[in-house]
Amino acid sequence: MAQLRRVVEVRRTFKDKELDELFLVAMCELSESFSMRLFVTEALFVRSFRLFGTRTQQAEWVPKILAWESIGCFAMTELGHSSNLRGIETTATYDAANRDFIIDTPSLMATKIWIGMAGETATHTACLARLLVRGQDCGLHWFVVPLRDPKTGRLMPGVTAGDVGAKAGRNGLDNGWIQFTHVRVPRDAMLARWARVAADGTFHAGLNPEDADPANNVSPAAAAGLAYAGLIPERLEITRGIPMMLNQALTIAVRYAAGRRQGPAGNPQVLDYPSIQAALMPALARMHAVMAAAGAVWTTWHAMEEGGPNALLQGLPDMHALSAGIKATVTWDGADILERCRRAMGGHAYSRYNAIADYIGDYGVMTTGGGDNAVLVQQTARYVLAMARKSMADPNKFASTVAPTDSVAYLPSAVALAAEGVPPAVSDWTSLAQLHAVLQWLAVAKVQALGMSLASAPKGGMTRAWNAAHADISAVAQLHTHQYLARAIRIRAGDLEPTARDSAVAPAALQPTFVRLARLYLLDVLRQFARDLLLHGWARDVVEQLDVEFADACAQVRDQAMPLVDAFGLPDWILQAPLARADGDGYRAYLATIQNAPNCFGPPKYWDAEVRPLTAPAGRSRL
Amino acid sequence: MAQLRRVVEVRRTFKDKELDELFLVAMCELSESFSMRLFVTEALFVRSFRLFGTRTQQAEWVPKILAWESIGCFAMTELGHSSNLRGIETTATYDAANRDFIIDTPSLMATKIWIGMAGETATHTACLARLLVRGQDCGLHWFVVPLRDPKTGRLMPGVTAGDVGAKAGRNGLDNGWIQFTHVRVPRDAMLARWARVAADGTFHAGLNPEDADPANNVSPAAAAGLAYAGLIPERLEITRGIPMMLNQALTIAVRYAAGRRQGPAGNPQVLDYPSIQAALMPALARMHAVMAAAGAVWTTWHAMEEGGPNALLQGLPDMHALSAGIKATVTWDGADILERCRRAMGGHAYSRYNAIADYIGDYGVMTTGGGDNAVLVQQTARYVLAMARKSMADPNKFASTVAPTDSVAYLPSAVALAAEGVPPAVSDWTSLAQLHAVLQWLAVAKVQALGMSLASAPKGGMTRAWNAAHADISAVAQLHTHQYLARAIRIRAGDLEPTARDSAVAPAALQPTFVRLARLYLLDVLRQFARDLLLHGWARDVVEQLDVEFADACAQVRDQAMPLVDAFGLPDWILQAPLARADGDGYRAYLATIQNAPNCFGPPKYWDAEVRPLTAPAGRSRL
Ligand SMILES: Cc1cc2nc3c(=O)[nH]c(=O)nc-3n(C[C@H](O)[C@H](O)[C@H](O)COP(=O)(O)OP(=O)(O)OC[C@H]3O[C@@H](n4cnc5c(N)ncnc54)[C@H](O)[C@@H]3O)c2cc1C
Ligand SMILES: Cc1cc2nc3c(=O)[nH]c(=O)nc-3n(C[C@H](O)[C@H](O)[C@H](O)COP(=O)(O)OP(=O)(O)OC[C@H]3O[C@@H](n4cnc5c(N)ncnc54)[C@H](O)[C@@H]3O)c2cc1C
Repeated sequence: MAQLRRVVEVRRTFKDKELDELFLVAMCELSESFSMRLFVTEALFVRSFRLFGTRTQQAEWVPKILAWESIGCFAMTELGHSSNLRGIETTATYDAANRDFIIDTPSLMATKIWIGMAGETATHTACLARLLVRGQDCGLHWFVVPLRDPKTGRLMPGVTAGDVGAKAGRNGLDNGWIQFTHVRVPRDAMLARWARVAADGTFHAGLNPEDADPANNVSPAAAAGLAYAGLIPERLEITRGIPMMLNQALTIAVRYAAGRRQGPAGNPQVLDYPSIQAALMPALARMHAVMAAAGAVWTTWHAMEEGGPNALLQGLPDMHALSAGIKATVTWDGADILERCRRAMGGHAYSRYNAIADYIGDYGVMTTGGGDNAVLVQQTARYVLAMARKSMADPNKFASTVAPTDSVAYLPSAVALAAEGVPPAVSDWTSLAQLHAVLQWLAVAKVQALGMSLASAPKGGMTRAWNAAHADISAVAQLHTHQYLARAIRIRAGDLEPTARDSAVAPAALQPTFVRLARLYLLDVLRQFARDLLLHGWARDVVEQLDVEFADACAQVRDQAMPLVDAFGLPDWILQAPLARADGDGYRAYLATIQNAPNCFGPPKYWDAEVRPLTAPAGRSRL
Repeated sequence: MAQLRRVVEVRRTFKDKELDELFLVAMCELSESFSMRLFVTEALFVRSFRLFGTRTQQAEWVPKILAWESIGCFAMTELGHSSNLRGIETTATYDAANRDFIIDTPSLMATKIWIGMAGETATHTACLARLLVRGQDCGLHWFVVPLRDPKTGRLMPGVTAGDVGAKAGRNGLDNGWIQFTHVRVPRDAMLARWARVAADGTFHAGLNPEDADPANNVSPAAAAGLAYAGLIPERLEITRGIPMMLNQALTIAVRYAAGRRQGPAGNPQVLDYPSIQAALMPALARMHAVMAAAGAVWTTWHAMEEGGPNALLQGLPDMHALSAGIKATVTWDGADILERCRRAMGGHAYSRYNAIADYIGDYGVMTTGGGDNAVLVQQTARYVLAMARKSMADPNKFASTVAPTDSVAYLPSAVALAAEGVPPAVSDWTSLAQLHAVLQWLAVAKVQALGMSLASAPKGGMTRAWNAAHADISAVAQLHTHQYLARAIRIRAGDLEPTARDSAVAPAALQPTFVRLARLYLLDVLRQFARDLLLHGWARDVVEQLDVEFADACAQVRDQAMPLVDAFGLPDWILQAPLARADGDGYRAYLATIQNAPNCFGPPKYWDAEVRPLTAPAGRSRL
């Protein structure tokens, strides 16, 4: 928290916006806990107001939050419910007599938990609760509830809250739990952009008149779907947050593997083993694909957010599915990549001085926080299934519909490919377009197979069939996501025309490097789904050729591995991993770190009490 | 260390050997650091004497070590070398004038590192060093070197050593680093069972005359291979250590998934999702296969150790390959299983009060310590390749050769199957014998493909070809290991005749359960290698049927999941995971643990200094 206060103070002195942004990036790279604090505040708390608050509420709260005068948190999850939001038990009961809401935690399982900054520091929370008006359940809505006195830090009357205690990582952030005992908040504590309760206790669904504008005629039904949209930006944040973390791990692992020789000087670098290349090089490619996609998703999201309610609502299904797919796919891949970095470093990854161990601890939240991956892939697959059906029903109409992102633009052509009955041939293994087409074809082939297996479910057995198809559902979501990311890295490589919302094409001199990365990325993803390729008609020798091309692509990226990690631009003081020092003198720095740590040198304090009674018991002559 | 001292004292009061053993098992389950201390002492340090010491040396040292009067460690790894033992730089130079050895660390990279208990507590170390006699390099040998004064804990002259500091886990164990500056040790400090230096400085390879016996005529060449055998017991220990750890994680995850409902009471248990079953049920089956194999490998090893030098040397290649394969396969699988347990628990795995987070930290050493898995699979594959060639050359002779373990007994029949050119048919998916035959066939099919691809390597390109084939090498080692483990669980299930060295068959009443586990185990392993099955000739619909059978087998084991984890017999005080309480009241216990933790309730100490300046700056009127 001291870190945070200092950052807030320093930022107030900045005049330069770019400097301010760079400063924040560096701080986030330096400290996972700091980045989570910033994230909870700016991505979750502020966003709750932006998405769910009326103009008045936004004007009142956003500046206070950005100035950290109100420290806020985002209380959705309960002890018993998170993946299943419909189970949320916390209630907000409108009391028409007093014109206020009573926020209450009716059971142990309704305890809000894991809430970032609720443990010690938050003065307010955005709280998701079931709105009860005149005994009627009006669905889930967001309320702002004061938690602590901003002056003393003491809990407000009726609020019981505390820290969740020791965690796998990010112990510098106070995740907390909260219980409410009939806590009264005024009527304007309800974030009322999409639904409101009139003073007399009438519930109105639909856009708040305050925000209404003739161009934006939102139906109450459409507005009701919005409570879940709050997590979309959190999921899109993955496109920035995961590379921020994993590029550090990759820099460390690649530098170690380049510096590590098996045996005396002159012997091969560990990085020359094809097995180590196969572990680390595709990981570099995957991170570049994610970074390439960040620009497009954020440009799209900002346009939706600022384009008024209609733009927001229209774009929502597509953006929701895409962000869920990205969140799940990229965080699963990231877990895998971190583990590879760990393994590439042999025993030295076990030392906390080489950073990887702490990344693994910190990372543990990624596959579940912001929505559990196993649940998210279902949302993506459901959307892809529906869109593929639409595309099959009327490809021309589908192709001409303007979608907010380009995530489903591939469907008509991929459906046409799938209709040919044989997998698309790869005549040129260096053609990104051909490899990309295979990926898109496989996505559609899997979607169609999934659709068929669901269609054959017995009456009343749909839920069962859906749950049983989880492996295929997960594959569909991942393939859909990868074909989207592949698009982004092809654009970066200058291999595909960008649209207005895409991020910049790489400078010509760097394009050949991005082509290599894009090729490796595509081959790696195809290889991950080799089983499916074979099941959907690829011949054995094509898969064998895929392996050969993959090894070749790894070797090509390996040639540029050192400049590639240097280009991440992570200085030693951010990496905090002596073995990975930029100047190459890692071993000396590593041993020096060990020797400077407290208690490196003994004898330990416990020697006389615990060791000596065993090794030199009193009353025995010396050996 | 206090824990250890107390255990040593308590054990001295025990009269009952069985009680003593149970006590140790419980302590190891309770504390990973304790188990490592015990392990370093009993499995590594004592074993160094048993394997490499003469009878006199054993008689002198073993009792002292077992009584913890000498606390020892096992110093093999150096900063620069471990996977590549040939690179070891520490020297032991014989000084004929003084009749002693000079142990020396000639460079920074020669610093011994990671050595368990070298950080603070060890009084002695077994040290692997390059023996130099009369300027000649006589290979790597073991030496006992005093590190600390048993009374004061101070380092001996010439020894510099300290703790490696913060680690990913097992921080209760002092791993350390050691440098030797011309440390003199007497001539009998060299463990001299398999080679010795005479007082005059003549180096003799071959069994020490003291240990010679007419029945055991060991050639010097055979004896030279032994320096590496010290790690075999460490690797076999995996068959006990991994289930000891992972059964805890599985108990916690299964109980959580059974208690967790999506939504209000009456809704489905998370454990009923096929995706969660597919994650956790095969893990139970894999652990049972490992446990089933433990009896046989240890019986065999003890027979080798106690059967004199010939028995040891004869059994070595087979045992070496098998133990390396088990170590790599089981620890890789274990990492995967731990990650699944973590994911099955959603956000609650991130709390350190639910144990999984700490297991993941502790576990980080398993895939590399005791030999890096990527290196070990090469040793196993090399052996399987050689044995498969032998078996192909003369199947009858091969079949009649008595091997120390039953690990390669399958080769003749699997080679015959492979010769048929089509994969073995599965006519009955409940037949363990048929599934096992497919596994063995696939192992051989992969070995033969590997052999062919190596045979086509250009002259001088063998190392390159070998390194490039790492994925296949790894698959061969794992398939070989799994067919061995499958044998063990089939025996346990009463489905296969045991030999004298196998562990007990399960009681008749439990055999049906073991049959289910064995079936799931086999299906799961086949599924892991589905890509290879397809590449080696399995038809698509067979793989699709495999998926169906797998889901069915998961559901069958799920029906017994709760009794299966209860049968691991792990009480709450060992699990230390309130959410997994045996009485089912996990959520209450979990929240109570959180609330009883220090600093759960605020305001935090830093409020006035760090928060208040932001939320209620002085000189501003109260909001
Ligand atoms: C907690 C802990 C306790 C330990 N305790 C002890 C102890 O008590 N005594 C002791 O002597 N040692 C101990 N060790 C050291 C341990 O045995 C080594 O860390 C281990 O052998 C791996 O060696 P390394 O770290 O040098 O890996 P490296 O050799 O640096 O391996 C780096 C990478 O290269 C890869 N690699 C290496 N060779 C090849 C190859 N031929 N082909 C393909 N890939 C390759 C590896 O897979 C790995 O990914 C301990 C380690 C830890 C973490
Ligand atoms: C460090 C950290 C910070 C957090 N910060 C916040 C915060 O600031 N605000 C907030 O509101 N929340 C926060 N959370 C909570 C987080 O969002 C939840 O943990 C997450 O949504 C998962 O929910 P759960 O823990 O209830 O998982 P569970 O629902 O218990 O999931 C258990 C298992 O069931 C599986 N599962 C569930 N449903 C299905 C299904 N339909 N099909 C198949 N499998 C299924 C899951 O994949 C998982 O494996 C945080 C969590 C952590 C760990």
